[in-house]
Amino acid sequence: MRSRLQEFLKEDIGSGDVTSELVVPLDETARGRIICKEPCVLAGVAEASEVFKELGAGTVRSRKDGTKAKKGDVVLEVKGSARAILAGERLALNFVMRMSGIATLTADLTAACRKVNPKVRIAATRKTTPGFREFEKKAVLIGGGDPHRYALDDAILIKDNHIMLAGGVEEALKRARRGSFTKKIEIEVENPKDARTALANGADIIMLDNFKPKALQKLSEELKSIRPDVMIEASGGISPENVRKFAPGADIISLGWLTHSVKSIDFSMDVKRT
Amino acid sequence: MRSRLQEFLKEDIGSGDVTSELVVPLDETARGRIICKEPCVLAGVAEASEVFKELGAGTVRSRKDGTKAKKGDVVLEVKGSARAILAGERLALNFVMRMSGIATLTADLTAACRKVNPKVRIAATRKTTPGFREFEKKAVLIGGGDPHRYALDDAILIKDNHIMLAGGVEEALKRARRGSFTKKIEIEVENPKDARTALANGADIIMLDNFKPKALQKLSEELKSIRPDVMIEASGGISPENVRKFAPGADIISLGWLTHSVKSIDFSMDVKRT
Amino acid sequence: MRSRLQEFLKEDIGSGDVTSELVVPLDETARGRIICKEPCVLAGVAEASEVFKELGAGTVRSRKDGTKAKKGDVVLEVKGSARAILAGERLALNFVMRMSGIATLTADLTAACRKVNPKVRIAATRKTTPGFREFEKKAVLIGGGDPHRYALDDAILIKDNHIMLAGGVEEALKRARRGSFTKKIEIEVENPKDARTALANGADIIMLDNFKPKALQKLSEELKSIRPDVMIEASGGISPENVRKFAPGADIISLGWLTHSVKSIDFSMDVKRT
Amino acid sequence: MRSRLQEFLKEDIGSGDVTSELVVPLDETARGRIICKEPCVLAGVAEASEVFKELGAGTVRSRKDGTKAKKGDVVLEVKGSARAILAGERLALNFVMRMSGIATLTADLTAACRKVNPKVRIAATRKTTPGFREFEKKAVLIGGGDPHRYALDDAILIKDNHIMLAGGVEEALKRARRGSFTKKIEIEVENPKDARTALANGADIIMLDNFKPKALQKLSEELKSIRPDVMIEASGGISPENVRKFAPGADIISLGWLTHSVKSIDFSMDVKRT
Amino acid sequence: MRSRLQEFLKEDIGSGDVTSELVVPLDETARGRIICKEPCVLAGVAEASEVFKELGAGTVRSRKDGTKAKKGDVVLEVKGSARAILAGERLALNFVMRMSGIATLTADLTAACRKVNPKVRIAATRKTTPGFREFEKKAVLIGGGDPHRYALDDAILIKDNHIMLAGGVEEALKRARRGSFTKKIEIEVENPKDARTALANGADIIMLDNFKPKALQKLSEELKSIRPDVMIEASGGISPENVRKFAPGADIISLGWLTHSVKSIDFSMDVKRT
Amino acid sequence: MRSRLQEFLKEDIGSGDVTSELVVPLDETARGRIICKEPCVLAGVAEASEVFKELGAGTVRSRKDGTKAKKGDVVLEVKGSARAILAGERLALNFVMRMSGIATLTADLTAACRKVNPKVRIAATRKTTPGFREFEKKAVLIGGGDPHRYALDDAILIKDNHIMLAGGVEEALKRARRGSFTKKIEIEVENPKDARTALANGADIIMLDNFKPKALQKLSEELKSIRPDVMIEASGGISPENVRKFAPGADIISLGWLTHSVKSIDFSMDVKRT
Repeated sequence: MRSRLQEFLKEDIGSGDVTSELVVPLDETARGRIICKEPCVLAGVAEASEVFKELGAGTVRSRKDGTKAKKGDVVLEVKGSARAILAGERLALNFVMRMSGIATLTADLTAACRKVNPKVRIAATRKTTPGFREFEKKAVLIGGGDPHRYALDDAILIKDNHIMLAGGVEEALKRARRGSFTKKIEIEVENPKDARTALANGADIIMLDNFKPKALQKLSEELKSIRPDVMIEASGGISPENVRKFAPGADIISLGWLTHSVKSIDFSMDVKRT
Repeated sequence: MRSRLQEFLKEDIGSGDVTSELVVPLDETARGRIICKEPCVLAGVAEASEVFKELGAGTVRSRKDGTKAKKGDVVLEVKGSARAILAGERLALNFVMRMSGIATLTADLTAACRKVNPKVRIAATRKTTPGFREFEKKAVLIGGGDPHRYALDDAILIKDNHIMLAGGVEEALKRARRGSFTKKIEIEVENPKDARTALANGADIIMLDNFKPKALQKLSEELKSIRPDVMIEASGGISPENVRKFAPGADIISLGWLTHSVKSIDFSMDVKRT
Repeated sequence: MRSRLQEFLKEDIGSGDVTSELVVPLDETARGRIICKEPCVLAGVAEASEVFKELGAGTVRSRKDGTKAKKGDVVLEVKGSARAILAGERLALNFVMRMSGIATLTADLTAACRKVNPKVRIAATRKTTPGFREFEKKAVLIGGGDPHRYALDDAILIKDNHIMLAGGVEEALKRARRGSFTKKIEIEVENPKDARTALANGADIIMLDNFKPKALQKLSEELKSIRPDVMIEASGGISPENVRKFAPGADIISLGWLTHSVKSIDFSMDVKRT
Repeated sequence: MRSRLQEFLKEDIGSGDVTSELVVPLDETARGRIICKEPCVLAGVAEASEVFKELGAGTVRSRKDGTKAKKGDVVLEVKGSARAILAGERLALNFVMRMSGIATLTADLTAACRKVNPKVRIAATRKTTPGFREFEKKAVLIGGGDPHRYALDDAILIKDNHIMLAGGVEEALKRARRGSFTKKIEIEVENPKDARTALANGADIIMLDNFKPKALQKLSEELKSIRPDVMIEASGGISPENVRKFAPGADIISLGWLTHSVKSIDFSMDVKRT
Repeated sequence: MRSRLQEFLKEDIGSGDVTSELVVPLDETARGRIICKEPCVLAGVAEASEVFKELGAGTVRSRKDGTKAKKGDVVLEVKGSARAILAGERLALNFVMRMSGIATLTADLTAACRKVNPKVRIAATRKTTPGFREFEKKAVLIGGGDPHRYALDDAILIKDNHIMLAGGVEEALKRARRGSFTKKIEIEVENPKDARTALANGADIIMLDNFKPKALQKLSEELKSIRPDVMIEASGGISPENVRKFAPGADIISLGWLTHSVKSIDFSMDVKRT
Repeated sequence: MRSRLQEFLKEDIGSGDVTSELVVPLDETARGRIICKEPCVLAGVAEASEVFKELGAGTVRSRKDGTKAKKGDVVLEVKGSARAILAGERLALNFVMRMSGIATLTADLTAACRKVNPKVRIAATRKTTPGFREFEKKAVLIGGGDPHRYALDDAILIKDNHIMLAGGVEEALKRARRGSFTKKIEIEVENPKDARTALANGADIIMLDNFKPKALQKLSEELKSIRPDVMIEASGGISPENVRKFAPGADIISLGWLTHSVKSIDFSMDVKRT
């Protein structure tokens, strides 16, 4: 992780923090506190702490990622060189704001859906910000969600384009079963017929894409009556507004919104001379 | 840029696209089209095109970043190896979705504010996704906004913590003027008194932080009557909902929302065998 | 892959090929041929070709990885600058020699075991040369084997130390099932009792470690009679000499030997002025 | 070295050790011991220790590289976070297994050859695993061998292809002597006539390639009677079986086998909760 | 900075310090002192100290960069492993020699010019050694100079080729004013007419290129009488010999000589066993 | 080399050439010519050409490195996008200016010394600019000099500190002879007694450090009368002014001046629209 932090610090600092170098004496020490401005599930505090550590400023106290914070809570306090604290401020806040936004939304949607189906999981997708996926997936995990695939090498997921290029669901699954025994096989289907073919041909997970909630529930029950261990993933056209409607029929509900359209949580930092 | 693309592809592909390697023949060729699903200002199409080029698939046609697209428009068409097109699909879409989201919001807010003040500029902040700033700032530019500082080395910007550590506005500006003659000096102030001191001590740009719109306009007029070339930046507590209220008094309105809470624009990709 | 090739070339060339720079004129052109010195299944020819391409020398003809070669066969012919061909020679040969060694052994053991059990797979382990795993796993694939996990993020594999730290097979599996639904769960056990517990607690794959061939076959049959879709992996103490004894009872036989103790296949390169 | 370790850990861990993260509590601490399973000369223990250090687990005790170990010996003991120890296990073992394999074979062949010629050196070649050469050469050194050239910039070594392209031994050596005075000049020859020409034209080292042992000894004596300080290297077609036959006539015997076909030494790791 | 140091150490050490590894025992400890051989303004001592720290040798005492040193002064004393001190010696000295050369010349020229014009600044250019600019600019700063642009993204500087391609000074400035409000606009002109046009079109800084000292002073006075806050930079054909002639008319005098033709200051290192 | 160029371009361009992006249209094409401003031996033209190629601008014609150029000569002409040419201008010129400075001084000193001793070589040292050594050594080669060691792994060079730590010349050489047979052994001595000991103990090269020219010549003749093939290197306190006095007694004269205090050669670039 340190090389990522160094890369991110380089991005934010460039050749140097010209303002602090001019305005703040080299030997000034300070204490910085990151303060929460709205209720949330915390994520990214560990990363924020690492940012300051990388710059030589130590953590005095910190709240644990995954816990709830409310307006006014101090979630991280660091002390060290004033210049270091100012140099790390923006990156630390950027971690906490975005990751807490994702964790909070994940936790909220999970809670809402589990009222309907206590076993359902909310999952992320690969619709993440390029270069920042590991942190966005981590925030989903912290919020109680499932990260789903980190990369294309993680599991076999046969999508519509694969099926078209293979010439059908059966042939696509036949080819997929030649893959490593270590990988699960998931397939995305758009109608009940393809779902049944997938079930009959050994898919471990069936993703029902763009199904209406009722249709999804009905088909899911049918499939599970045939093979109880099959997993059903609902996907496509799912937003924070409609997500709970999919809970009855799905083992997993995946939505890109968690990472591509999330609102950040507001945090700020205050600094005091020590 | 190529090394960034390679890094992003590595993130998304990992050790290999196991699904396509199993399901899609090595010598299969295809044509892929990225299709717009909602009205927007395009951004990231150039990057999407580069993604496919990096994987060996050529661009057949592409829409220009900065132009408007509507639902159903084909914004990029590529052709080449089917596996290459599938391997690049997600990263290409992630670029276009996020960058178009930012460009569209920037263009919308700029248009709204310019009805009130035709010279005002909407500016981004450093509240960006770590590692992806260059693309988020570029999307702001494409949407007609001002990127503001890319990094801490770009301009001198004296913030509240700097003023506190320096012991006041006057002293902070005195120290800042020792900096390189190539840099502008901006200062963030929270009350009219500090703004007047900043004006008297050579600040090129005065950022009025968390001012009410009316107060901002009044103070801005006072400051410009004394030094017409001073620039006034409004910042703090500004969202897409209230941004236009700040237009009358400001040369620049900066808001983190453009990059930290933007909703992505929806695009999808269809693939056909060739 | 290009950045790996560049890194490998840097390792082999250092600051420059001082010999060729002194002895071979800059504008001399040549043709180089890689010649097989013993029967084998080819692997690494694609990489060798890329090495020369990276240095500016083009491929005239090349044999396909995965095919069989015999002594005297030309497996790759390139042409271009004589200095480039000499600079790439060693790295190209190192790829072909090691990868063909792995592919050949994998193919031989697979053929031998399939005489006994036509569905068994020979699998590699993570006992690879640090930094070169992707190529060693690829050679296993080319030889008809299963690459098994590329890295610790690939699948859940509960080993003896995990079981001990979790306090038993049941508890370890219970914890593992909280993981992402995209991952298979494999567990390594050392006795029939643990194997039965693993079966009852949802393991997708059971690795029978250090079992005698007969005991393995018997237990495998018992487990499959209870849950036909469970996969049985034989591991521990398996070498090219004894591997076929494990074929009757196993779906997969994994052995580190494929990558940690393989003998290279001999190839050489001859160069002619053009 | 740290950046290599980080690269290797990344290769083995990927985006995270999903098993340990699920099964082993974050605050569990443990002690891990690497145990030798067969007699050997140790190498790679220092690297294994660095692997754990990089992950935050400290060394309790360790055996020195270059010493002999026997079955059952604990060669490294570390303690720290249980997850860290499990995450480093495979890489640490891969270092020790491969490097000890090389050091042991080097030591064995050196001992055997020195019974015949007490001054002879066993040398490695550039037939190493791409990306891992520095560690393979180091293991040769630890085993008492000579690493020979690390890269093409290390010394001038004129091979058959160079001679052909230069138009003969004399011309090749004439060109080579224009090189930096800091480099030795070695030349590979395939017959006595070329060896004599090389001797007369200032070669520091003459490599006799593919000579029969008797012929090599005879020619070596002739050449040394003319210029006693010339060094004779035997190379080509040398394996662990026949190496000692070349000892009488050679100052150095080089064989690729040390690095391209070596059998790993078996080690395992046991972990205990602390 | 650490990654730069590691890169530089790799450049200087390669695969290992073969001499010290052979000649100096592994456990030998020593004390090394860097000694100044001629009067200078020190720079690079901080970097030299970091070099040894990176190699595990601690700083005993060190002189502060920016202070004056004379022949015989010990500017840095480190202690630690003898091999580490020898391995870092050359890089540490290369930092101190080159950076002190730059700082000293900068300080000398600044002092000379300020006798004539107490407010004038000596500035560097982008004529630096590729890859080492951050340290050369830092040395200029330490010597009391202005670093000028670190990179093309730092400020808008319209040069002769830009003016030609834009079709004139007025058009070039008009286009430049569309840039970010955070950037100053500088323009290079070669005659009084263009300078006046630049002044009238909002240039923040006017660079008078290749003007005779008298002509520069006269034009500078004229321009400042119109807009007192405009800054005048003298550039082109300026060397240590003639620099002070430009002091009367300029706010800034920039010369490439500081970084492209500076003479290093001589330092040496002595080592004692401890 | 491409990765070095990309790194250097990143250093010079940062996040973008803001001036050209504003002032020069995207589709403007141009022709750029690098023009020599003073007589010199060219070096770095190949690198300059690569810089433009990296940015997409092709070479129209170029002068060969190692040839002489005079004021007014066009040494490189490129054509392509105007923005690309402007973006590459500074880095290209920095290569040519510094490398030609080094090549020219090397050629001048070599010519001067060879009037006295036709076989003497001028050699560089490791006193180079961190990160730029490969190009500085290459310029020395182009100027007809000897690059000497590129890094500490190149040859064994026992210096004063090594001798002190080993306990004397004889012991140091004894230890050094245990090193790889591929490496030459050089030793630095400061008096005739140590030189004689070095000669008697097998040093390949003896560096006479800080000897007066006459004393050096006398000792050199004595040593060569004993062992004609020993090489004598003069070093220490040698500058362009006094270098030729050392020519009579030395095989090699090494001086840091070539790389640490060289004056750049002046070149400029003109651009024309096409």
